Amino acid sequence: MSRFLNNAFISLDAYTPGEQPRDKAYIKLNTNESPYPPSPETVKAVSSSEVCDLNLYPDPTCKELKQALADRYNLNENQVFVSNGSDDILNFAFLAFAGKGGKAYFPDISYGFYEVFCELHGVTANKIPLKQDFSICADDYFNKDGMVVIANPNAPTGLCLSLEEIESILDNNPDQVVVIDEAYVDFGGLSAVALIENHENLLVVQTFSKSRSMAGARLGFALGNKELIADLEKIKYSTNPYSINRLTLIAGVSAIKSDSYYMENCTKIIKTRDFVTKELRSEGFYVLPSSANFIFAKKDGIEGKRLYEALKEKGVLVRHFNKERISDFIRITIGTDAEMKSFLQIIKEICEEEVK
Amino acid sequence: MSRFLNNAFISLDAYTPGEQPRDKAYIKLNTNESPYPPSPETVKAVSSSEVCDLNLYPDPTCKELKQALADRYNLNENQVFVSNGSDDILNFAFLAFAGKGGKAYFPDISYGFYEVFCELHGVTANKIPLKQDFSICADDYFNKDGMVVIANPNAPTGLCLSLEEIESILDNNPDQVVVIDEAYVDFGGLSAVALIENHENLLVVQTFSKSRSMAGARLGFALGNKELIADLEKIKYSTNPYSINRLTLIAGVSAIKSDSYYMENCTKIIKTRDFVTKELRSEGFYVLPSSANFIFAKKDGIEGKRLYEALKEKGVLVRHFNKERISDFIRITIGTDAEMKSFLQIIKEICEEEVK
Repeated sequence: MSRFLNNAFISLDAYTPGEQPRDKAYIKLNTNESPYPPSPETVKAVSSSEVCDLNLYPDPTCKELKQALADRYNLNENQVFVSNGSDDILNFAFLAFAGKGGKAYFPDISYGFYEVFCELHGVTANKIPLKQDFSICADDYFNKDGMVVIANPNAPTGLCLSLEEIESILDNNPDQVVVIDEAYVDFGGLSAVALIENHENLLVVQTFSKSRSMAGARLGFALGNKELIADLEKIKYSTNPYSINRLTLIAGVSAIKSDSYYMENCTKIIKTRDFVTKELRSEGFYVLPSSANFIFAKKDGIEGKRLYEALKEKGVLVRHFNKERISDFIRITIGTDAEMKSFLQIIKEICEEEVK
Repeated sequence: MSRFLNNAFISLDAYTPGEQPRDKAYIKLNTNESPYPPSPETVKAVSSSEVCDLNLYPDPTCKELKQALADRYNLNENQVFVSNGSDDILNFAFLAFAGKGGKAYFPDISYGFYEVFCELHGVTANKIPLKQDFSICADDYFNKDGMVVIANPNAPTGLCLSLEEIESILDNNPDQVVVIDEAYVDFGGLSAVALIENHENLLVVQTFSKSRSMAGARLGFALGNKELIADLEKIKYSTNPYSINRLTLIAGVSAIKSDSYYMENCTKIIKTRDFVTKELRSEGFYVLPSSANFIFAKKDGIEGKRLYEALKEKGVLVRHFNKERISDFIRITIGTDAEMKSFLQIIKEICEEEVK
């Protein structure tokens, strides 16, 4: 830290992304990436001639991509916002709709970045405990005096709220923005997009990083009523108007145009997830019923940290959170069938060794 | 605007990027892009197999790119920061080193985004008038009680400060960060990078958008002492750790590896600029002596706005700023020789028509 840093940020505790070790080749099940490559159409779209045009700025209005997303989700273009990953959008939302002196409400166990955004922007973070079974109690989010943020499915639990529950939260916070972070919705959740028409306070945030195999391209989008979207545009044009590069814009449009490829991959991942869940349960694991592309699991007698370490030693990366209530668990991203079979084999070995 | 937007942003006046009309094909001399494509090495580097890997997150530490830049500028890796375009970095710098309640000092005629960052972050903007000849008086920036920001060469004037003048500003602001925005430095300015070793308060910001033909890839970098860089990393990891996508990272590394290609293009652009300057002067234009990839010019008897409009009508886009002291001028990006010959021909026609 330099002596020039604004005092407000001295104790700021930045987000820690999942590790990306390069010491050897791992089965990488730690950052919820898709195990499948982008569609052939996407690979073709990012052509040499597009790379040759990189000397020109991208379209700051992202018109073509917004049109494609609007068509896909039955909205108007002015109900669509796009930016450099959904973290970028969440950051804007915390700034625009909570902001200095404001408040935000979210589950105590959820995406770790929400707290960081609060700290960065001087927003008071109010963390509402999950229920004993790790589910969210919708009533706990009624009549709040600040922005409500709910990941649905939640991370790292993988558990879902129903649309009725989300609607009840929206109805009981008419003067607050409710952000539904749907990073994992394509793996079994129901999107709140259908509620946009009748709820001007709803902002749905999604990403191309998970179901659309584009974590490396950095592309997120938000859907909501046009005034909320205009607010986000104002913040974007006050920080970095050209926030999405040309190649990602092209890749994004082509991904929407080859939607069925990606939705079929989601179906595959769901199938693999259900298989892995069953196998782990038969090994004596407690596995939360996931609607995401990861599962959250623990086994009595083996600490989460120990399991994480033993897996890493044997070449499998998963994620462990050293946090109250969930330190026994590990979060396992769903890879290909082959990867998950190797994973299950290794888990069995570890469990046998631990028993000895 | 929604009724949910934080009051702090109600009057926020976002940045207006240069227009990107699509009604017809223009000779595009309005956003200071390079007229030359990225190097053949860069085009090759962004291969199909790299696109196939987009399902994986990029390296958030950007290690390879930082190494390449550190080697190129004779610095250590921890003296290099990279992010999603230099606007992204300037935004972080205004937040980290000025911030809410802080102050910033910059020329009254300069990059228009500085004011926007101030407004966004609650920083008091202190605009110091350029001298009569549009140059910056270094003494005006001594002993300030806030961050100093100077574009060198300045935009839209194209005029430079000497390294001695920059050093005097650094020496006379030992307790303030001095940001030298060198977006255009490769077209004839002298970089302040050499001053980093002895000035812990210096942050040099550069971009791949101009001299390195990658405006469409979104890549900026900052060079400075390691504590300043660590502060910027903290802000980046608190907003969007994966701020640079995989393809831009690869393109950036390959661009540094094919540096001579880009530096030769700069030489070409300088040559074209000097030719255009001479031609315009012989047409009776007043042209500031530019060290950038654009020129700032005016002609008695034709308003800047009129000139901008007449050029647009004839298929040439330039930039006009409707602002005190400079409303007579137009800013003309230097394109290829062929583009500039067409431009000069059209300018002559316009001047003849205006005389009639």
